[in-house]
Amino acid sequence: MTEMKEETKLWGGRFDAKIDVLMEKFNSSISFDQQMWQADIQGSKAYAKALHKAKLITEAELEAMLLGLDNLEKEWSSEKFEIKPSDEDIHTANERRLSEIIGADIAGKLHTGRSRNDQVVTDTRLWLRSQLNIIKKHLCTLILAITSRAEEDINVLMPGYTHLQRAQPIRWSHWLMSYGVCLLRDMDKVVQIQHRVSTLPLGCGALAGNPFAIDRQFLADELKFQSVSLNSMDTIGNRDFIAEVLFWATQVCNHLSRLAEDLIIFASNEFSFVKLSDAFSTGSSLMPQKKNPDSLELIRGKAGTVLGRMTGFMATTKGLPSTYNKDLQEDKVALFEVCDTTAAMIQIAAGVISTLEVNQPAMKSALSYDMLATDVAYYLVRKGVPFREAHALSGQVVKKSEKLKCKLNEVPFSEMLQISDKFAKDIEEVWDFESSVEQYTSAGGTSKSCVLEQIKLVRIKLNEC
Amino acid sequence: MTEMKEETKLWGGRFDAKIDVLMEKFNSSISFDQQMWQADIQGSKAYAKALHKAKLITEAELEAMLLGLDNLEKEWSSEKFEIKPSDEDIHTANERRLSEIIGADIAGKLHTGRSRNDQVVTDTRLWLRSQLNIIKKHLCTLILAITSRAEEDINVLMPGYTHLQRAQPIRWSHWLMSYGVCLLRDMDKVVQIQHRVSTLPLGCGALAGNPFAIDRQFLADELKFQSVSLNSMDTIGNRDFIAEVLFWATQVCNHLSRLAEDLIIFASNEFSFVKLSDAFSTGSSLMPQKKNPDSLELIRGKAGTVLGRMTGFMATTKGLPSTYNKDLQEDKVALFEVCDTTAAMIQIAAGVISTLEVNQPAMKSALSYDMLATDVAYYLVRKGVPFREAHALSGQVVKKSEKLKCKLNEVPFSEMLQISDKFAKDIEEVWDFESSVEQYTSAGGTSKSCVLEQIKLVRIKLNEC
Amino acid sequence: MTEMKEETKLWGGRFDAKIDVLMEKFNSSISFDQQMWQADIQGSKAYAKALHKAKLITEAELEAMLLGLDNLEKEWSSEKFEIKPSDEDIHTANERRLSEIIGADIAGKLHTGRSRNDQVVTDTRLWLRSQLNIIKKHLCTLILAITSRAEEDINVLMPGYTHLQRAQPIRWSHWLMSYGVCLLRDMDKVVQIQHRVSTLPLGCGALAGNPFAIDRQFLADELKFQSVSLNSMDTIGNRDFIAEVLFWATQVCNHLSRLAEDLIIFASNEFSFVKLSDAFSTGSSLMPQKKNPDSLELIRGKAGTVLGRMTGFMATTKGLPSTYNKDLQEDKVALFEVCDTTAAMIQIAAGVISTLEVNQPAMKSALSYDMLATDVAYYLVRKGVPFREAHALSGQVVKKSEKLKCKLNEVPFSEMLQISDKFAKDIEEVWDFESSVEQYTSAGGTSKSCVLEQIKLVRIKLNEC
Amino acid sequence: MTEMKEETKLWGGRFDAKIDVLMEKFNSSISFDQQMWQADIQGSKAYAKALHKAKLITEAELEAMLLGLDNLEKEWSSEKFEIKPSDEDIHTANERRLSEIIGADIAGKLHTGRSRNDQVVTDTRLWLRSQLNIIKKHLCTLILAITSRAEEDINVLMPGYTHLQRAQPIRWSHWLMSYGVCLLRDMDKVVQIQHRVSTLPLGCGALAGNPFAIDRQFLADELKFQSVSLNSMDTIGNRDFIAEVLFWATQVCNHLSRLAEDLIIFASNEFSFVKLSDAFSTGSSLMPQKKNPDSLELIRGKAGTVLGRMTGFMATTKGLPSTYNKDLQEDKVALFEVCDTTAAMIQIAAGVISTLEVNQPAMKSALSYDMLATDVAYYLVRKGVPFREAHALSGQVVKKSEKLKCKLNEVPFSEMLQISDKFAKDIEEVWDFESSVEQYTSAGGTSKSCVLEQIKLVRIKLNEC
Repeated sequence: MTEMKEETKLWGGRFDAKIDVLMEKFNSSISFDQQMWQADIQGSKAYAKALHKAKLITEAELEAMLLGLDNLEKEWSSEKFEIKPSDEDIHTANERRLSEIIGADIAGKLHTGRSRNDQVVTDTRLWLRSQLNIIKKHLCTLILAITSRAEEDINVLMPGYTHLQRAQPIRWSHWLMSYGVCLLRDMDKVVQIQHRVSTLPLGCGALAGNPFAIDRQFLADELKFQSVSLNSMDTIGNRDFIAEVLFWATQVCNHLSRLAEDLIIFASNEFSFVKLSDAFSTGSSLMPQKKNPDSLELIRGKAGTVLGRMTGFMATTKGLPSTYNKDLQEDKVALFEVCDTTAAMIQIAAGVISTLEVNQPAMKSALSYDMLATDVAYYLVRKGVPFREAHALSGQVVKKSEKLKCKLNEVPFSEMLQISDKFAKDIEEVWDFESSVEQYTSAGGTSKSCVLEQIKLVRIKLNEC
Repeated sequence: MTEMKEETKLWGGRFDAKIDVLMEKFNSSISFDQQMWQADIQGSKAYAKALHKAKLITEAELEAMLLGLDNLEKEWSSEKFEIKPSDEDIHTANERRLSEIIGADIAGKLHTGRSRNDQVVTDTRLWLRSQLNIIKKHLCTLILAITSRAEEDINVLMPGYTHLQRAQPIRWSHWLMSYGVCLLRDMDKVVQIQHRVSTLPLGCGALAGNPFAIDRQFLADELKFQSVSLNSMDTIGNRDFIAEVLFWATQVCNHLSRLAEDLIIFASNEFSFVKLSDAFSTGSSLMPQKKNPDSLELIRGKAGTVLGRMTGFMATTKGLPSTYNKDLQEDKVALFEVCDTTAAMIQIAAGVISTLEVNQPAMKSALSYDMLATDVAYYLVRKGVPFREAHALSGQVVKKSEKLKCKLNEVPFSEMLQISDKFAKDIEEVWDFESSVEQYTSAGGTSKSCVLEQIKLVRIKLNEC
Repeated sequence: MTEMKEETKLWGGRFDAKIDVLMEKFNSSISFDQQMWQADIQGSKAYAKALHKAKLITEAELEAMLLGLDNLEKEWSSEKFEIKPSDEDIHTANERRLSEIIGADIAGKLHTGRSRNDQVVTDTRLWLRSQLNIIKKHLCTLILAITSRAEEDINVLMPGYTHLQRAQPIRWSHWLMSYGVCLLRDMDKVVQIQHRVSTLPLGCGALAGNPFAIDRQFLADELKFQSVSLNSMDTIGNRDFIAEVLFWATQVCNHLSRLAEDLIIFASNEFSFVKLSDAFSTGSSLMPQKKNPDSLELIRGKAGTVLGRMTGFMATTKGLPSTYNKDLQEDKVALFEVCDTTAAMIQIAAGVISTLEVNQPAMKSALSYDMLATDVAYYLVRKGVPFREAHALSGQVVKKSEKLKCKLNEVPFSEMLQISDKFAKDIEEVWDFESSVEQYTSAGGTSKSCVLEQIKLVRIKLNEC
Repeated sequence: MTEMKEETKLWGGRFDAKIDVLMEKFNSSISFDQQMWQADIQGSKAYAKALHKAKLITEAELEAMLLGLDNLEKEWSSEKFEIKPSDEDIHTANERRLSEIIGADIAGKLHTGRSRNDQVVTDTRLWLRSQLNIIKKHLCTLILAITSRAEEDINVLMPGYTHLQRAQPIRWSHWLMSYGVCLLRDMDKVVQIQHRVSTLPLGCGALAGNPFAIDRQFLADELKFQSVSLNSMDTIGNRDFIAEVLFWATQVCNHLSRLAEDLIIFASNEFSFVKLSDAFSTGSSLMPQKKNPDSLELIRGKAGTVLGRMTGFMATTKGLPSTYNKDLQEDKVALFEVCDTTAAMIQIAAGVISTLEVNQPAMKSALSYDMLATDVAYYLVRKGVPFREAHALSGQVVKKSEKLKCKLNEVPFSEMLQISDKFAKDIEEVWDFESSVEQYTSAGGTSKSCVLEQIKLVRIKLNEC
């Protein structure tokens, strides 16, 4: 029994002793790598064609292989593929099944000059390529949701914060677009990463290369890879593209974690700037009045988990001898989980943004006059006072208002004159939040035209991705 | 339909809108937290008793609850428990099912004054407490395997390395025991951590405490917790014990990764010091002669993954507002995976150590005479030369041997005399690896008596854990 | 010149070529490890005594050594010690200087049987032991500052939050003590770590042990180490105690980061619960009205940096061959920086807590009646309604208040009766925040007596540390 | 005294209380950010010009400013700039000094509409841009060193390893080039990152933008930035480019850590494939024969430290509220240290590679015949045996050789015939390592022509960077 099982292990030819049961489980990857079944079949089809091109198999053998692989594909698609205990990974499983379908004589030729080493990384790259396309679509949806919302809510003003202290009045859409442009940057990066993912590893064998003059450019064309890897040893041990994707995802998740933090604070009773849709909130098992922003907290929390996955994988590869070591098998669980989590986080974020309610009165009433202190300084600058002095004078007005326990705009004009004789009656015009916001007309500013310009630009660039 | 589903959510009383489907999946934890089913029932039984003690339920109600919880336990044990789509977590699932079994009237009283917040962390601590016992048993087995092997192989000499360069001759058992004492340290630490894990959170409610005078010491006694937590707000948001366990596991895995690195190198063809059992090796799909130490590489690789889990969770909790935030739900997947992985790694390591073959001739032939250069210096010290000078003189002998392209023990006596007139004929006695090893008699050294003493001590201390 | 410099390198006896200049800088550690000068001298004194005890040096030689080391100590204390370019580390520097003071003949005996490997880790443990004492003192001060404040402000109520949503009324002191007990836990842990730090490595030589029958227990007694390390190979490569301290610090910093996050939010204009002292705030170069909680933001930010130091060091040690490898030199910069940062963060936190102003009216006005929804449920429970039903009924009252756009306590009694006939006129008594808080009398709760009990307990336990 | 000091703080206008001394140190960044002095002056010059263009200052004022800034530059260059205790950061220091040189009236206008927030990130980008150019140059040197060595040593054969087990014969140059192409990938990435670094933040003010119609495209042109940032809020809180550089460096260091690991193993006595130059080795303070690869161990070790820096910074930014928070000040120490370390590691690696001695005889004698087992399978494939069967048959030959305790090429022909009748006399031709290597002619393989092609390609692509 065990003997037979061993036979079916692709590398079992010379081993006598049985493998340890726990070791078998420890070593096996089929539980997670089966999701690459399609990529594995895709890669095998291309390799079969290359074998034929190199005259290593006949036309008839090629046809048999392709037909067999088609059948395999159908079995997986229809969830009829049966995994056997001896199938330690998806590659063994598919080869074993192909052998059953078309016979060992022909199936046994498919692995000619190919190694598990170049096969597994080919599959991973193919799988990842399609995953990144999916994630990109979600990301695009999120960015568009942000731009739509920003366009719609263009007239809503709110306090802008630095250090979580009220700083200057801004447009709510400006806040929204700060995440829009940030995520656009992520889009820009992933496009570059995709180019590196799209490099053909197949035809590198175990480490030394392929000895049957397999045409690797042909393989690249078949599999729509953009380039052919340069060195076989590097190729089989290279997981840089995975680390890059993990880092990219970490950065995206980090951005969403900041978005989440902002919104969690904005959704607190004290701020009350936004109200999350019930669809993205949950209640409390004990406190009936609670409405918790669980969606956002999970986003914020999972950003840490994703960071850990990336760090962990980098630590795994650090100081590893070159070429392939089994340690690299840790790449897949990390990659699969991170892709899933990131895709979900992006979608949830899009849902939250699209459905949240903005509490315009709350935002408005949070616009306090002390936020116009900079404008007072600017007022003085426009009257010819050097900025640094103007800043100090404005600071004195603030101090005076604190002393008088009044609002900044309520400091008596006489008091202001005592601080600086540059103050004139037109200081009144400063006390207007809308016009404060509208003065920021340099590119990237919070004036209406600037924000609308951002929306336009982001949409254009998104189209180019 | 959805309406009904909502009803069964414990916190669903006031929500009108449906939850987003993706959000539901994002939010749900039943897929992983169901493994705490037993702890959850255990906690509920104790809480039921405390409610009765506080006269919040009658004797009959208590009996009904306990019976119902027994039934629940049986359903889970016999894998008959059916998870419903609305069961977002194990706590909801159990409460829902209890309600079906004993009726909502009685079951509805179980959560009196209890919150999901104190319940979930109680369950986690109970679950973890038993997991740590399991892991400790495996760790104990591993340490004993090391001591057995060390005792058995006590006469085997090998080169000791620093910087992976041959340094001084040592006993193979000394190398083994270096991991034995290191893992014993881990055992010592986990015992301390268990004390902290064993702190009762139940009775802290949502955050403010319990308003029904529930006797928390009674709860602690019932659940065999060693102490009662001090502050309810801290208690519900405190995941320090999880971070501690993750760190502890990271350190254990780190130790095993170093053990693995050593053995991978020792198992290389060039070293050939050890040969792994086939049970812990695998072959190559392409190269028939290969025998790969996959077990050890996976150990080394997974150490990185575990480090990432710990780091990720620490990043998740960093900067979080106090008390409970949903971000903390990330604790469980990390904890469950790390406990599983660590337990497996320890067991695999025990298997590898127990079954590997030592190649004594290879070790012996790697004992080169240059490794006795320190002994030459020590020889001179014993002749009254200050160590620093002796070290320099021995260095000159080394240099001479390199110049003459001969072994250190083959440098002609006349040449040695030219280097120092302290050299006498008894220098011959230095050229013996066994006696070199035997000179290290200070505690912790590599002489036979010292190594046997270590074995004895480790076994004694292990018994105390 | 260079020739001379090479001579002074302790290991330079057999090398011909010059070391690369950049390599010299890369390799050198004197720039940071010089802060261990005192520990290095301390260790050397003890070792000199042990050499004498082992009859390897005479009484006169011992006296010369001790006197020389005293001189060295004075030079360092008075900042007169001059570092030479060839002093690659503190050990070389001290040995070189000692040699100059008492002559190479005697000084050259000090390193007999000692290696840089056991010396450096002895120094590190000595240094760390005293550092931890300093950090503990700061931590103690912080905890006492928290308890003082908690005692003083015992009557201040505020909203308690979960998910950053108002949950239940609590005492401000309860919030304070949630950090008090959390940091007490850290104190408890560091005491355990100190025991492990206090293990003697000296006398383990390069890796094989000490061949001159040096009495290691004598060394331990001299240096006040609590135990003697068990295995020489483990000892010289063991940096577990450093990783543990880094993790401990990370956890402390994580706690402070949560404290900081809470206070940053509480200090926002919208919350206005606290006002930081000017001493721990900074202004804006542009906005005169700003008062930024920089102290707290730095605490929160540095928690990430410290986490990274710990993670980085764990990654450095992962998969390292056993015993000493130069990679381990990375331990010191990490350790030194983390100790400094943690000590500073603790002190700043103590300063912030001690000097902040509590805005009691703001806290009070944030106590909204919806926070008493749980109390409404509890009211019904006390009237005999099963909790789960009571929770749902209270949820309906909340919903009704939202519909009527009134406060929870303003829902007309008639409406409440429609929801449940259990409501009676005594429901009025529920609308009192003080009595709500006072009902949490189970251990760890937010009632006054419970919080005062916490303060008492923490002070007692602190005395025991 | 203190009063005066406070005056000079740019934001000190309204604060009454003194800042805490420890807090001052905690908050200050001048100790490390002074290395950006040049970038700060560069940015100020451009901003002065933009102020003039926007008619906010006169021609004369501009000239005074530029002249003053020139003077500042000279003071720094000649190390005559004196830092005052009140100079909390480089920006304050420069503004303070400029004020002293040209008077507060004119100097006080420089900050008009500018904020510390946009200033600091402008400086950082300018500083980083030039640093990356330096690092790129070092990286280029390293890659060229590898290609030179690869070209020179093209005829040297060695065993190729997977799982650190001998796998297939390869060229030493193929191993070298595996790092060459890997580092070329890093070069490719940093070029893309530089584009993102080269985005202008200046003119974004504190967060809302610039209210004086400053021409940001003009600023970008002045400072040679490739683009203008899109949204002012995003701009001031965006540290993505720093995280990216930290990650990039981590990946480079990871590559070097693998190179180091390979060479450390190759330099062990058991392998003896390479001998490090004395310039990159060190000796032992105790063992005269030791020659330790400290350079490589430090490279391997520092890769962990750099990973930690990156992780730590990502953790710092996770969950931060948007725009600027003081937590972001942690970016600089991380960035500065990582740039320094990475540059040093690259240079050391180049030195090691250029100066190491290859031990060709040792490499040759490590080429054992079992490494040709794949070739035996290939032989059978060429005779028409399906690969999978050929692999099994070759496995039987290996097994037979183990049984007979002979080398693979010494298995009697008669025994081989019993395993398969496809074996013929020409099997003899298989037993040649050179021709084994030469069969790998597909792109990226280890045949001479393929390796030379790699060298050529890498050089071409390097020229394009």
